[in-house]
Amino acid sequence: MRARVMVTLKREVLDPQGEAVRRGLESLGIQGVRNVRVGKLIELELDDAAGDVQAALTLAVEKLLVNPVIEDGHVVVDEAAR
Amino acid sequence: MRARVMVTLKREVLDPQGEAVRRGLESLGIQGVRNVRVGKLIELELDDAAGDVQAALTLAVEKLLVNPVIEDGHVVVDEAAR
Repeated sequence: MRARVMVTLKREVLDPQGEAVRRGLESLGIQGVRNVRVGKLIELELDDAAGDVQAALTLAVEKLLVNPVIEDGHVVVDEAAR
Repeated sequence: MRARVMVTLKREVLDPQGEAVRRGLESLGIQGVRNVRVGKLIELELDDAAGDVQAALTLAVEKLLVNPVIEDGHVVVDEAAR
């Protein structure tokens, strides 16, 4: 089974890396990009017998993967990839 | 309109950050995590009139966002969020 945790900066947190990407795209001639935010994508490969994955990963997000002061975490479990 | 670029390390590239996360999850008592890979999630907010977004972002992936030696890039355009 596969799961993804998407970690993004909260809206109110400045993202200089994202702004650098936005300017880079502009100088590449790509128009119409209003805003860019750079976050983390954590891909997990899990045993099929791994019980309540959603609950375990929500715990993981709270305890390890996300800094709750500046980041949000979002868990997506890909049941189809079992 | 919104789009996402997911940047992941190629399979054959070692990911020490992912391995550190895997061990962290294990020591949190989360069982059954076989493998973890850490990549980047780039979220873009685009003007609705921004033409052929898929083509523009594929160019962006090739020229700016991905290091093709070690990374793969994947573009997801969220038409529903227009």
